[in-house]
Amino acid sequence: MNMAKPIKYPLILVNFKTYFESLGGRALLIAQECEKISEEYGICIAIAPQHLDIPVIAKATSVPLFSQHADWEVPGAHTGNITVESLIEGGAIGTILNHSEHRLRIDVIDATLARCKSLHLQTCLCANTSLIGRSLSILEPDMIAVEPPELIGSGISVSKAKPDVISESVRLIKELNKNVHILCGAGITTGEDVASSVKLGAEGVLVASGVVKAKNPRGILEEFAKSLTVQ
Amino acid sequence: MNMAKPIKYPLILVNFKTYFESLGGRALLIAQECEKISEEYGICIAIAPQHLDIPVIAKATSVPLFSQHADWEVPGAHTGNITVESLIEGGAIGTILNHSEHRLRIDVIDATLARCKSLHLQTCLCANTSLIGRSLSILEPDMIAVEPPELIGSGISVSKAKPDVISESVRLIKELNKNVHILCGAGITTGEDVASSVKLGAEGVLVASGVVKAKNPRGILEEFAKSLTVQ
Amino acid sequence: MNMAKPIKYPLILVNFKTYFESLGGRALLIAQECEKISEEYGICIAIAPQHLDIPVIAKATSVPLFSQHADWEVPGAHTGNITVESLIEGGAIGTILNHSEHRLRIDVIDATLARCKSLHLQTCLCANTSLIGRSLSILEPDMIAVEPPELIGSGISVSKAKPDVISESVRLIKELNKNVHILCGAGITTGEDVASSVKLGAEGVLVASGVVKAKNPRGILEEFAKSLTVQ
Amino acid sequence: MNMAKPIKYPLILVNFKTYFESLGGRALLIAQECEKISEEYGICIAIAPQHLDIPVIAKATSVPLFSQHADWEVPGAHTGNITVESLIEGGAIGTILNHSEHRLRIDVIDATLARCKSLHLQTCLCANTSLIGRSLSILEPDMIAVEPPELIGSGISVSKAKPDVISESVRLIKELNKNVHILCGAGITTGEDVASSVKLGAEGVLVASGVVKAKNPRGILEEFAKSLTVQ
Repeated sequence: MNMAKPIKYPLILVNFKTYFESLGGRALLIAQECEKISEEYGICIAIAPQHLDIPVIAKATSVPLFSQHADWEVPGAHTGNITVESLIEGGAIGTILNHSEHRLRIDVIDATLARCKSLHLQTCLCANTSLIGRSLSILEPDMIAVEPPELIGSGISVSKAKPDVISESVRLIKELNKNVHILCGAGITTGEDVASSVKLGAEGVLVASGVVKAKNPRGILEEFAKSLTVQ
Repeated sequence: MNMAKPIKYPLILVNFKTYFESLGGRALLIAQECEKISEEYGICIAIAPQHLDIPVIAKATSVPLFSQHADWEVPGAHTGNITVESLIEGGAIGTILNHSEHRLRIDVIDATLARCKSLHLQTCLCANTSLIGRSLSILEPDMIAVEPPELIGSGISVSKAKPDVISESVRLIKELNKNVHILCGAGITTGEDVASSVKLGAEGVLVASGVVKAKNPRGILEEFAKSLTVQ
Repeated sequence: MNMAKPIKYPLILVNFKTYFESLGGRALLIAQECEKISEEYGICIAIAPQHLDIPVIAKATSVPLFSQHADWEVPGAHTGNITVESLIEGGAIGTILNHSEHRLRIDVIDATLARCKSLHLQTCLCANTSLIGRSLSILEPDMIAVEPPELIGSGISVSKAKPDVISESVRLIKELNKNVHILCGAGITTGEDVASSVKLGAEGVLVASGVVKAKNPRGILEEFAKSLTVQ
Repeated sequence: MNMAKPIKYPLILVNFKTYFESLGGRALLIAQECEKISEEYGICIAIAPQHLDIPVIAKATSVPLFSQHADWEVPGAHTGNITVESLIEGGAIGTILNHSEHRLRIDVIDATLARCKSLHLQTCLCANTSLIGRSLSILEPDMIAVEPPELIGSGISVSKAKPDVISESVRLIKELNKNVHILCGAGITTGEDVASSVKLGAEGVLVASGVVKAKNPRGILEEFAKSLTVQ
């Protein structure tokens, strides 16, 4: 297992999705850039690569690794599942759950959170609205990422287009559960987007194409990290 | 990528499922046993470990590696998917699809087969009955594994309890598609089970707990391989 | 459309599921018994028959009718869906959602609630635990029915086996949302079960086999209604 | 139960989907038009209305009624399911299965067909390609409707845009199973579309918006029926 650094806030969590630009060797390169920038600026950058890339990146870097999904079933006769055990064995320290591209049943969210907690895998639960974020915060994930689905991959950032979604999420969620960390996502492409998200109360961002499909991912990551140190 | 040996028939395909006994380091050990026995007896043994174990085993062995599932979508915004690209990148040469623990929609089976073919990933489609096997053979997978679900994990082998399922599958499928290879599975625990499957016309077996949860997996694998060389 | 009586609490909501005993003509007979007992004892009894039975019962009785499920999509190209429009047209005044036998994704629950609200269809959201009940109450359904799945159909009532589930649900949910009505369910077969549920703070019960598969459904319904009038 | 006329070929099967234009009272009106035109021209016209409309139309007309979906489970604890029993009780004589808007797992298709056969409910299985049609024909449904999904609702008929899909489907399916009746669908809006479908070997059409969303459904149905009598 790798010596992944602990999660610190504000957090930049980069979802590699299944983009061609962030697979295999290219995933490792981006991971290494994240590691360098993280060290240079003192800002925590975690990544969620494709499942098979997790163990390779875990061995080669100290970047905190998230899975993009986890199944709730215990080890056994569950062909094709992503077990929490295999994620930990592979070096992941957390998992995204209920992403808009991978929505889950409410009872499955609850069961998966319980499994993750019992094995100390951190959880970042996605929600499409601030109200759903509030609802899910009751199940006590480590993080809630509120992402209006219509802005995902749009290049129009939630902090510009719908700043209220962020401030409202912070208010609605923190009121019930101060321990849950709130990320915001969707359409984030500039350091300014990141900075204003944090100004609105978010404790970090969940970003994907804005980094992975950028012409210069290193440059963007640096811009993101800088925008957080200034604060 | 690893230098995986090509698939030969009769084939022993070992599905590691998500058993605790076949995760991480233990997966690698079983893979290494498979490699040795395969070389010693000249019988092809392929394995389907958990997703995250694929790249590690690919680097350490020449065992032909299958995934337990693959998604049909092309690389892109598909958080949590298992792409065919990532399987190939990780060193897999094939994938199980539509296992009884991971059944798929008929249009998804068709789309996934097309994706796998376009990237030369071999496909082992599971079917619960000989008639469904015949139906799926029309979509031209490389292999069809017929497994009566009620016998999976039962310790009662299909070759003993329902030999007709095997011979009928062979007849119904080969009549339509001579190129598809027929495996049989469910409840296989002894060399005798393997031998009689092949006598009934199967070109190999799909086995899971019979090997993975055995007290002595090496011994069982050896018994399986021997039973095929005798023929 | 029928002249369904309005919902009053305490409420007895009888889920007909797809039992043979509550299909077609037999559904209508049970509905008529519900109507009579409801009038006689002044206790509101609503029923959730199979989809196709709704319009027939709506024409023949004034029993408040719930659907067992509703889909969130608006009218259009959605072959096989149960639209909210068709439920209202057929005479339903409400719907059960997220039953343990028909669990839904969290975003689908949210979208379906929004559709139901916009067309004034009442909603009874099921939850397997008090915490999930609390979580779902934030989405503002009309009712939350908390049912430990392991007790459903068991004949062991939640009010006996897990009274804390009821009192805790009441506390956790009402604290956040006083407007949501709390039903409890699972294993309820006697008037005593109903009475103690209400004593623990529930505003009614969700019951299925306890009525539908009883030798004498009329007798059981009467026992239930009586137990609520005594209070 | 209604005295539904038996299915005859060539068949016009009108899928009402969940269109607003074919709900409730409007569904009944279209059903009555179908009945009249069917009698006048001697062409069999069947309809698949929304679930709740089935019993009402069954009582008022002799139009052969299909469901838009059916679940495979037997009567029991299956909240929200559409049982084959309830369809028969409600007056349906058949069901569409695996529509592109309601795709099913291959094992579920098999199980549902078995249930429908055991209770003599006719089955119209949808397929997106001629090859999938051939594959599904092995499971012996009564009808296969081949519909290229990209043409559904497009107004561009399969008989014009992809005539090969029809002739190829007929060849591939009839070669294996002469008893299965082949419908074609997607984009059919004129009598010419219907006529050329039948000339290419189809035994009928599956049509939805072409009738339901037409300004004058009666006129279109008449045009369809006429085009089949001329032959």
